[in-house]
Amino acid sequence: MSRVVIIGGDAAGMSAAAVASRGARPVELVVFERGEYTSFAACGLPYFVGGQVTDAQALVARSPEKHRANGIDVRTGHEVMAIDTAARRVTVRSHAAAREFTEPFDHLVIATGAAPIRPPFPNVEAKGIHVIHTIPNAVAIDAMIRDRRPRRAVVVGAGYIGIEVVEALVQRGLEVTVVEKLATPMATLDPDMGERVAAAMRAMGVELKLGIGVEGFEVDGDGWVRGVVTSGGDVPAELVVLGLGVRPNVALARDAGIALGPTGAIATDARMATAVDGVWAAGDCAESFHRVSERPTWIALGTHANKQGRVVGSNVSGTHARFPGVIGTAVTRVGTTEIGLTGLNERAARAAGFDVVAESIEALTRAHYYPDAAKIAVKLVAERGSGRLLGAQIVGGPESAKRIDALAVAVWNAMTADAFAQLDLGYAPPLSPVWDPTLIAARLAASKAR
Amino acid sequence: MSRVVIIGGDAAGMSAAAVASRGARPVELVVFERGEYTSFAACGLPYFVGGQVTDAQALVARSPEKHRANGIDVRTGHEVMAIDTAARRVTVRSHAAAREFTEPFDHLVIATGAAPIRPPFPNVEAKGIHVIHTIPNAVAIDAMIRDRRPRRAVVVGAGYIGIEVVEALVQRGLEVTVVEKLATPMATLDPDMGERVAAAMRAMGVELKLGIGVEGFEVDGDGWVRGVVTSGGDVPAELVVLGLGVRPNVALARDAGIALGPTGAIATDARMATAVDGVWAAGDCAESFHRVSERPTWIALGTHANKQGRVVGSNVSGTHARFPGVIGTAVTRVGTTEIGLTGLNERAARAAGFDVVAESIEALTRAHYYPDAAKIAVKLVAERGSGRLLGAQIVGGPESAKRIDALAVAVWNAMTADAFAQLDLGYAPPLSPVWDPTLIAARLAASKAR
Repeated sequence: MSRVVIIGGDAAGMSAAAVASRGARPVELVVFERGEYTSFAACGLPYFVGGQVTDAQALVARSPEKHRANGIDVRTGHEVMAIDTAARRVTVRSHAAAREFTEPFDHLVIATGAAPIRPPFPNVEAKGIHVIHTIPNAVAIDAMIRDRRPRRAVVVGAGYIGIEVVEALVQRGLEVTVVEKLATPMATLDPDMGERVAAAMRAMGVELKLGIGVEGFEVDGDGWVRGVVTSGGDVPAELVVLGLGVRPNVALARDAGIALGPTGAIATDARMATAVDGVWAAGDCAESFHRVSERPTWIALGTHANKQGRVVGSNVSGTHARFPGVIGTAVTRVGTTEIGLTGLNERAARAAGFDVVAESIEALTRAHYYPDAAKIAVKLVAERGSGRLLGAQIVGGPESAKRIDALAVAVWNAMTADAFAQLDLGYAPPLSPVWDPTLIAARLAASKAR
Repeated sequence: MSRVVIIGGDAAGMSAAAVASRGARPVELVVFERGEYTSFAACGLPYFVGGQVTDAQALVARSPEKHRANGIDVRTGHEVMAIDTAARRVTVRSHAAAREFTEPFDHLVIATGAAPIRPPFPNVEAKGIHVIHTIPNAVAIDAMIRDRRPRRAVVVGAGYIGIEVVEALVQRGLEVTVVEKLATPMATLDPDMGERVAAAMRAMGVELKLGIGVEGFEVDGDGWVRGVVTSGGDVPAELVVLGLGVRPNVALARDAGIALGPTGAIATDARMATAVDGVWAAGDCAESFHRVSERPTWIALGTHANKQGRVVGSNVSGTHARFPGVIGTAVTRVGTTEIGLTGLNERAARAAGFDVVAESIEALTRAHYYPDAAKIAVKLVAERGSGRLLGAQIVGGPESAKRIDALAVAVWNAMTADAFAQLDLGYAPPLSPVWDPTLIAARLAASKAR
């Protein structure tokens, strides 16, 4: 029976474990997780801070106890310190027992995830400056708001996490300022669509300092943050949340000589195999293939982690499986404004070597005469000439974001804008206008692409 | 310059007129509409009765005056009485002038729509018995409710219109009973999914009499309905709405010798040309091609009418255009329960000669820990062996129905359930669980299809 060692007990690692534990070929399986939690929903953390989720434990999809009850040997508080690919073993430290031991493997699954970026700004370790990546992080922010009742918060970075934290802190009644180096929020959106997100945040009473870099933090005598020093002046704040994105946790792999890819994450093939035989990678530490750019990409997202974990779980237990790649679909929300995107934006499409046309429209989410029809903007990026859909972006009111899925299926299938415009999509006045906004955008994009 | 005559000033006719009026080749254009309205949203009528839409005029997307301002000669109150395909002219009656005249054409566009089915039940013409197909119909129902304050209503038929009227009458505070010949509502859904719609209506306080046929109506001394006679006993009611579906208006075409198809609607090719050269049909009077069954189908729906009208408008004005067919996508709602479907249901797939597997799952519309996550049931129909997706049905809470669109794009592209399960769809806790319900259903359907 082959021995499978999994490093990391979150989405990717536990999906791999679950699939491998009931695979075609029985395996001996152990998961080492350095923290105390398994399978928790990192994406839910902002909503715990915002108060929509009242119990942090609800974010744990499956506890270590439940995994064990399913026959999976998961050891929390166990950190893998080194990988020896030649001897085919890992060195593990038990934090509780304060001892190290080695564990042999036939297959090794690296699912070490990602870590929040925390640049070495002066005073970045001050009290009141937080990241939001784990349940303890979110609990700490919540506790700090309860205990110290801060009035002013600064969110550094206006990516996904940044804007979700903005919503959360506004919900909690704080005055929120966003400091973002780029000229518009959400670098994955083109600037014209990002501007709509900026407008939505301003309408929520959030102050935006765009195109402005953080230079450090001011701290009071007790070591608590009292302001953010930026290239555009000082911004007072009693609470700071850093939403500067994440980096793949690749130190273990790199130190073991396992090849990283051009994105800095662990290089993988379609089976999620690394360059070392019998060593696999899945989730936020691993690269995947972008089906539109046809290049390696690195997108840290729970959906991919789950799917990649399942693929690896199959491959280490006797069933050949491939991960077909990603197209960068994502949805999020700030207040009542929803955001969806898939495929490549204009800039990314040009960088991938496409000759690009783009078309944007503004429409309504429901029939114009039906109450609470909300504005929705749809932008399509297509290849000039062929009309192939390369990407789509949506910013709009309630019921906007998940409309990206139909466009994601189209981008996945390399449909043309013209073919998309002919599609038979659902229509009823409370749910959609007779011409779905995505169809209108496709019709115009098709004629522009010709 | 060629003369284009269009019969019917609603979605299909006016879309054809709009496109033809700015076509590649200039045309002389006249639209004859027997009623007073053009381009009105029939699908919005139940929401006028329900009170969500307060002004019936809001349902008119574009009035005759606006069309005329756009240079389209639309003559309301003008009914085409006969088509002479040999002499290439139509006989038109002006109701205002009470005179008939003939009008020559080079191209004729038949866009005569459909009419509600009103079987010859005893007393079906009694006061208080309504159909809901035109603005005057809806205004009459609204006025009757205001004037006579009925307490009990019966809706005959539990198809789209039926269930939308149920919602409307519940909104208006009536006690509603549904009488439906089939065992479950919504014949386009498989019975297991229809049962969910039945449960939703019961939860709204609606009484369902399923598997029961109407035999006639009881009338009081003043000619007002006071009950419905059914095979399951009498049901008292002061208001009755017939939601028994529609039939294509084909009398003009049939009398002119223009071929009808197997569905009873006007037979068309992919250009929406009838069997008579230079005569076209579009909208609710015309057949179209079903891309999954690969047979002629007849689905009366505004979205198809608009698209078919545009295709005909191109073809009569010098630009070749084809209508690629339909897959039967539809969405609707009863109360807070949403319904979506696309492609073929189990029964229809078997009738079309497929070896069928079906898989249903129940999941949530949002992350389980996020407030107001609603139940959503997804049923997929796939071809045994190939795993090709043939159809999908969704019944669930708010934000369920339009999820059918991603499945519609998949059915349109003949994707397999296995390929669908790999898709990169949008995930964020307030908008979707990490495994979108459609992906879960696809994964299970794929393994069942093998």
